Amino acid sequence: MERTKSRRRSRETRGTRTAQPTPAYITRTIPYYEFLNEEGLVKLEDQADWLIQEIGLEFREDPIALDIWRKAGADVKDTRVRLPKGMARSLCKTAPAKFTQHARNPARSVEMGGGSTVFAPVYGPPFIRCLEKGRRYGSMADLENLVKLTYMLPALHHSGLVICEPCDVPVNKRHFDMLYLHMRYSDKPHLGAITEMSRAEDSVAMARILHGEDFVAENCVIMGNVNTNSPLLVDKVVTEAIRTYSAAGQGMIVAPFILGGAMGPVTTAASIAQAFAEAMMCCAFSQLVKPGSPFILGNFLSSMSLKSGAPTFGMPEPVSSNYIIGQLARRLGIPLRCGGSLTASKVADAQAAYESADSMHSTALGGAHFVLHAAGWLEGGLSTGYEKLILDADRLGAYQKLLSGMPDDDNAFARDAYHEVEPSGHFLGCAHTMANYETAYYDAQMSDSESFEQWSERGEKDAQTRAFERWNAMLTQYEAPPIDPATDEALRDYVARRKNEMKDAWY
Amino acid sequence: MERTKSRRRSRETRGTRTAQPTPAYITRTIPYYEFLNEEGLVKLEDQADWLIQEIGLEFREDPIALDIWRKAGADVKDTRVRLPKGMARSLCKTAPAKFTQHARNPARSVEMGGGSTVFAPVYGPPFIRCLEKGRRYGSMADLENLVKLTYMLPALHHSGLVICEPCDVPVNKRHFDMLYLHMRYSDKPHLGAITEMSRAEDSVAMARILHGEDFVAENCVIMGNVNTNSPLLVDKVVTEAIRTYSAAGQGMIVAPFILGGAMGPVTTAASIAQAFAEAMMCCAFSQLVKPGSPFILGNFLSSMSLKSGAPTFGMPEPVSSNYIIGQLARRLGIPLRCGGSLTASKVADAQAAYESADSMHSTALGGAHFVLHAAGWLEGGLSTGYEKLILDADRLGAYQKLLSGMPDDDNAFARDAYHEVEPSGHFLGCAHTMANYETAYYDAQMSDSESFEQWSERGEKDAQTRAFERWNAMLTQYEAPPIDPATDEALRDYVARRKNEMKDAWY
Repeated sequence: MERTKSRRRSRETRGTRTAQPTPAYITRTIPYYEFLNEEGLVKLEDQADWLIQEIGLEFREDPIALDIWRKAGADVKDTRVRLPKGMARSLCKTAPAKFTQHARNPARSVEMGGGSTVFAPVYGPPFIRCLEKGRRYGSMADLENLVKLTYMLPALHHSGLVICEPCDVPVNKRHFDMLYLHMRYSDKPHLGAITEMSRAEDSVAMARILHGEDFVAENCVIMGNVNTNSPLLVDKVVTEAIRTYSAAGQGMIVAPFILGGAMGPVTTAASIAQAFAEAMMCCAFSQLVKPGSPFILGNFLSSMSLKSGAPTFGMPEPVSSNYIIGQLARRLGIPLRCGGSLTASKVADAQAAYESADSMHSTALGGAHFVLHAAGWLEGGLSTGYEKLILDADRLGAYQKLLSGMPDDDNAFARDAYHEVEPSGHFLGCAHTMANYETAYYDAQMSDSESFEQWSERGEKDAQTRAFERWNAMLTQYEAPPIDPATDEALRDYVARRKNEMKDAWY
Repeated sequence: MERTKSRRRSRETRGTRTAQPTPAYITRTIPYYEFLNEEGLVKLEDQADWLIQEIGLEFREDPIALDIWRKAGADVKDTRVRLPKGMARSLCKTAPAKFTQHARNPARSVEMGGGSTVFAPVYGPPFIRCLEKGRRYGSMADLENLVKLTYMLPALHHSGLVICEPCDVPVNKRHFDMLYLHMRYSDKPHLGAITEMSRAEDSVAMARILHGEDFVAENCVIMGNVNTNSPLLVDKVVTEAIRTYSAAGQGMIVAPFILGGAMGPVTTAASIAQAFAEAMMCCAFSQLVKPGSPFILGNFLSSMSLKSGAPTFGMPEPVSSNYIIGQLARRLGIPLRCGGSLTASKVADAQAAYESADSMHSTALGGAHFVLHAAGWLEGGLSTGYEKLILDADRLGAYQKLLSGMPDDDNAFARDAYHEVEPSGHFLGCAHTMANYETAYYDAQMSDSESFEQWSERGEKDAQTRAFERWNAMLTQYEAPPIDPATDEALRDYVARRKNEMKDAWY
């Protein structure tokens, strides 16, 4: 087994890994897990249709959105929009079942839909945590670190956007610096801003500088990610984002965030159907804005603690919902965003890992195409963990291997090895082992599998401590991907000019 | 949501939970995950047939076993046993697809096979670890604690046997005390000893005292659990255990333990097929000993660290093998033991939990019927963790909920609630929520879902710390299940008499 040799090589590369020539995204070869049967799925679809037809959705704060619905023939009363049965589903038909989000490095472009899976880091936490400094508000310096780490972690295929909220920069100017960080310090695909229409427009404008106007006119290079205001309320953050991104032919992700018992009924079947109805209506709206524009159906369900009423994560009900929404999305033929490495834990402890793993296992087998929050999430999404990011990302590599299936060619069955190794012998040094051991198993970076004695000699470091050392070492090794200097300058000019046009706003 | 009320109740019951009137085992209502298609499964079965027919298995140290094979028509050369294609599978047909292991409390009897899942604690670690005292050799006092905790934890359906190795009692006398602990301090089903034939016989003898000779003659009340000596070697520990337990109509579990690259080829397909061949041959042997005797097909595959050659757990290759062996076992029609909360981590940290969760998620969806090592496993099985036991067991309750499926009756779709709660409203106080919130979601005991501030005020306790407090509190609340005093005395007499017949042996 050449233990010494393989250990030495591992030591040399530890902490020095920059973005590897790994696949830009996962192409699954294994089946989906089908949790519900046909009868169960039809019940959920009927409930979604009933909600859209009988209860309807509120579209507030955006009269243009209501005009679009009216022109399409919807039943619009005040701000309530109802559609006859089947109309929402029918409108969704122009949305592509699969599309490419192009990265500035073409080798990192990702497919959304079909058998693909794309992992992106956590999105939105105002707080940040690391082992040394504990928990504090996120800063732009933290976000820069997180963009760099995400770039270096091979199982994160996508850079996301708000890996933490950079609270030290004015609210109305943050998006410029955030976008610049992603565009300059990574060459993985990323998301755009959504909180105000002008910020969405800035995002598309900067994408045009980075990718070229002609390319952006014909291709998806950026996406907006929004939540509905469940239950059944779609506000202008959603419709204006759609009217910006979709109108420009860019991608939209709409994810109802439903804490069961609060923003939806406390029963899982009802919450899944409601989320599906809300997302399907937004997809339909996006297709009215621009038929054929890329759309990702989002889903985010959490359960509730009986003790405190607080949201809980990684529990069996949201785990089953990941499987079920996957089935519904495939029947609708729209790419899916769901799941993630979710937890209510405040630190990267056992609770965090159990909850994240069950959430991610179902996310992966259930068939999510785009997985936001796949790494770094803590505390119900209120905090980004540096160590959690590192530990989650290592497990994402394991899902990448799992989804790629099990080889079953002649080499995999190793018949020659059984002639070389007699019963009761061992395979450690046999030719088949030597030829295969370097690729046979997933090479986890953060799992300590050495003996108790070795682990003890090295200071009894737990996973969190090892992850702390790892991300610090990684940052010292970071090298930025190349960028055309003229493009870089044009991006900086755009940011400087636009910032100059506005006063600082802190809320 | 009556937060105060529900929190108060939770506080009152925290740490005071004795064995609850929960189901004695899980009855799944959701499908299995079918990882491989028909073609892939046939390839694996062909490989297993090829191994049995062409390579053969060694049956060593037990001439009686070879006689049994010879009489059955096997090709026996020296100690090598080969069967013509199809013979092993054909012999397995008399093994029941489903059987009951009876507990001394009939309400705790478990079904093995069909849609059932039975969780049992870790088996065999010589070391024990807790947060206060660290790692040391296991003792009989530790085992007593672990039997009591297993009895009290509602998601552990089965008491196992060697929850830790009681290293402070002579090797040849341990099994008496171990069996007595399980028989006296729990009323859940348990396993018997296997290390020598006389110890297996003692186990069956004590079971006859506990359950009555007539009952044991007709029913399975105890099972032996053994490993083959992979690759392809079956020693007398296995055959003598089968010749004791199976002959008495009791259950046998044979689990090949294959560290890929050592006891089997480094490729997963070959290791799965080898494990299947070994277990199937042992099942066939058990049916030659006594047709119709209950048998559980075992499977234990681990992958290997590229860094050190050490076994790794919870990695994608053994995770996929849990799914695949489930398919193979169902096609053979024999109950399956596989998986568990496995990890190489030395402590109950994030590594331990990630690895355990992925291992268990696949164990659950893959359809294992009997899950040894479902709680408490650390360090590749070298150490039992008190905290790990508590944390794992809490997650087992989540799998119990997941496997029970999602309700989709009218109540689950909550249409009335949408008339009570308008779009943009909230469901917190509505009639449907009040009627359902106590049962809607899994009530995890060990997950902290409270706010950062609440968690911080209470001392920033991580999962391991909370688990330490929990098991200590539980032990102060333990109450032994009732036992007939005459039975108890007869058990004690048997133990005393048999111990008297032998000198202490320490190896």
